Amino acid sequence: MIEKNYPIPNRNKEMGQQVYEYINTLAKPLGSLGRLEEIAIELAEMKNEAFPSVSPAGILVFAADHGITEEGVSAYPQVVTKEMVHNFLDGGAGINVFGRQIDSYINIIDIGVANDIEHTSLINRKIRYGTANFYREDAMTRQEAERAIEVGYEQGSEMIKKGAQCLILGEMGIGNTTASSAILAVLSNSDVATLVGSGTGISQEILIHKTKVIKQSLQKRKPNPHDPIDIIVKVGGLEIAGMAGAMLAAATNRVPILIDGFICTVAALLAKEISPNAFDYMVATHQSVEPGHRIALNLLGRKPILDLDLRLGEGTGAAITFPILQSATLMLKEMASFDSAGISKKS
Amino acid sequence: MIEKNYPIPNRNKEMGQQVYEYINTLAKPLGSLGRLEEIAIELAEMKNEAFPSVSPAGILVFAADHGITEEGVSAYPQVVTKEMVHNFLDGGAGINVFGRQIDSYINIIDIGVANDIEHTSLINRKIRYGTANFYREDAMTRQEAERAIEVGYEQGSEMIKKGAQCLILGEMGIGNTTASSAILAVLSNSDVATLVGSGTGISQEILIHKTKVIKQSLQKRKPNPHDPIDIIVKVGGLEIAGMAGAMLAAATNRVPILIDGFICTVAALLAKEISPNAFDYMVATHQSVEPGHRIALNLLGRKPILDLDLRLGEGTGAAITFPILQSATLMLKEMASFDSAGISKKS
Repeated sequence: MIEKNYPIPNRNKEMGQQVYEYINTLAKPLGSLGRLEEIAIELAEMKNEAFPSVSPAGILVFAADHGITEEGVSAYPQVVTKEMVHNFLDGGAGINVFGRQIDSYINIIDIGVANDIEHTSLINRKIRYGTANFYREDAMTRQEAERAIEVGYEQGSEMIKKGAQCLILGEMGIGNTTASSAILAVLSNSDVATLVGSGTGISQEILIHKTKVIKQSLQKRKPNPHDPIDIIVKVGGLEIAGMAGAMLAAATNRVPILIDGFICTVAALLAKEISPNAFDYMVATHQSVEPGHRIALNLLGRKPILDLDLRLGEGTGAAITFPILQSATLMLKEMASFDSAGISKKS
Repeated sequence: MIEKNYPIPNRNKEMGQQVYEYINTLAKPLGSLGRLEEIAIELAEMKNEAFPSVSPAGILVFAADHGITEEGVSAYPQVVTKEMVHNFLDGGAGINVFGRQIDSYINIIDIGVANDIEHTSLINRKIRYGTANFYREDAMTRQEAERAIEVGYEQGSEMIKKGAQCLILGEMGIGNTTASSAILAVLSNSDVATLVGSGTGISQEILIHKTKVIKQSLQKRKPNPHDPIDIIVKVGGLEIAGMAGAMLAAATNRVPILIDGFICTVAALLAKEISPNAFDYMVATHQSVEPGHRIALNLLGRKPILDLDLRLGEGTGAAITFPILQSATLMLKEMASFDSAGISKKS
């Protein structure tokens, strides 16, 4: 089983205690940097370092297509996946803008786009030309699902070797909120209607249709809720599996994972199912407006840092949150203590 | 009356409409950058520019002492104000750390510290050696209050001349949550007990005492709720008046004001009382844990961007929020449109 193969270390709780005590010596009222202090402690535990760094971030955007778009569940035509990959490669997408803002690395990976893409900067790891339409047949074979996780793991590992101190996972794939909703319905055992949202902006009519398509697909495919690979095989997406694989690489290397929106959180749930320890390295960055996202975050058990009504995906919410994590690490590295600054203590 | 003297222009709503329409051409689902889109529109209206910039930020930290500390309302001795000013000047405080992170300018202004401070980087505009104890007498004279606002206005103007594209107002003054709570009780006409908090971390016993001191002071001083200058005279602080003055300078120059925590929000309420238009240039950055902050933000009528349980002051919450405003401006400046990137539109 793939589950057993990731040697993910535990967070170092002693390091966390040490950093907690150090924070209490800094020249500020006890606990007055609130959530920033918690984040600093978590990052120290993850990295097993008293003065952890998150810079530079490494962004991986996995792109793939979804056969389920044949059922008319999306606001945009499938060709937009390919077109947006070009936009990523040309530097004009949201994730490029926010990635430059935080001086990150960024790699764009074709893990299953339905069209061929020629571009020198593209990392081509295409497993197949989009998934099959899971309303009619399994999305992919077990071998393809495992290969997608491996590609993600390999890409995550390479980004870490390059020097990334945290990973941001982004995705592009017209139809991927449909696949993510199906996966989440299985993992959370909840009614599809409660977690399906408008994705990139479908009408109420298509929303009802999308819900019905997911429900019927799940009845036909019967994914095994205790086998994350089977869920990917039956109703998954190649980019979703790739993101989960990259998260497993991050966790194995003690590298914090910045979880973005709905699709990324569903990938995080899969990674956690594959290897529960991966959870220790996950930071939920923001609460999106996609209704399934709240359910997914609750299931994951992580409280998001921002709530800005974002729903773009691509990893944008995680990139926008990054400076707050950086603030937490700089607090540790640069703030003077009561003693070093010669400040009188509480009377 | 001082109220009439600030020629604050209105926000340009037409510019906002133009930017709103432009955002809708960007290559992303409509409205998918949520709050970031609203922030971009607000900044464009304030600056009257289609592609506004907030970088670099200019941070002004006003420091002053409070005679009310004689009544035993604070967790720290008064000398900490002076000691923290040295820490600011030496670059070791929270606001220095987060200010460097965002490449801002920073000026530290002594507007009324009880001790003399010698340092080449300090801006000395001391009006008096701390306020008087407002439990026993007025905090300052009307001339001093007006002078404090002028000093703030002058400092804000100079920072803007230097090139600051937005202002972050910070403060240091042992005892200033007591003064701020008194001011807010007058402005909000609410029970002191509902808005007094633990400040830098006082015990429950001192909290009850602090509440009683404020209540009795207000009964003795009887500030006129319709005269912001009188409120400052009776129960104010020199650094609070200075911050309000700097905000009036920002608003006059179409420069966005990043409102920090409780004390800064109370200063914003005073600036709004002095010149209601100043409100148009205020961005509430975060929700702190000081109970009065929620009341002050509601009264101001602004929804904060972050909620990270911060309560350090110094302008730190505003500095930590700054990158989000920067993201909003970069979205406008750098994202490709559907047309420029050749992306198919919604079907």
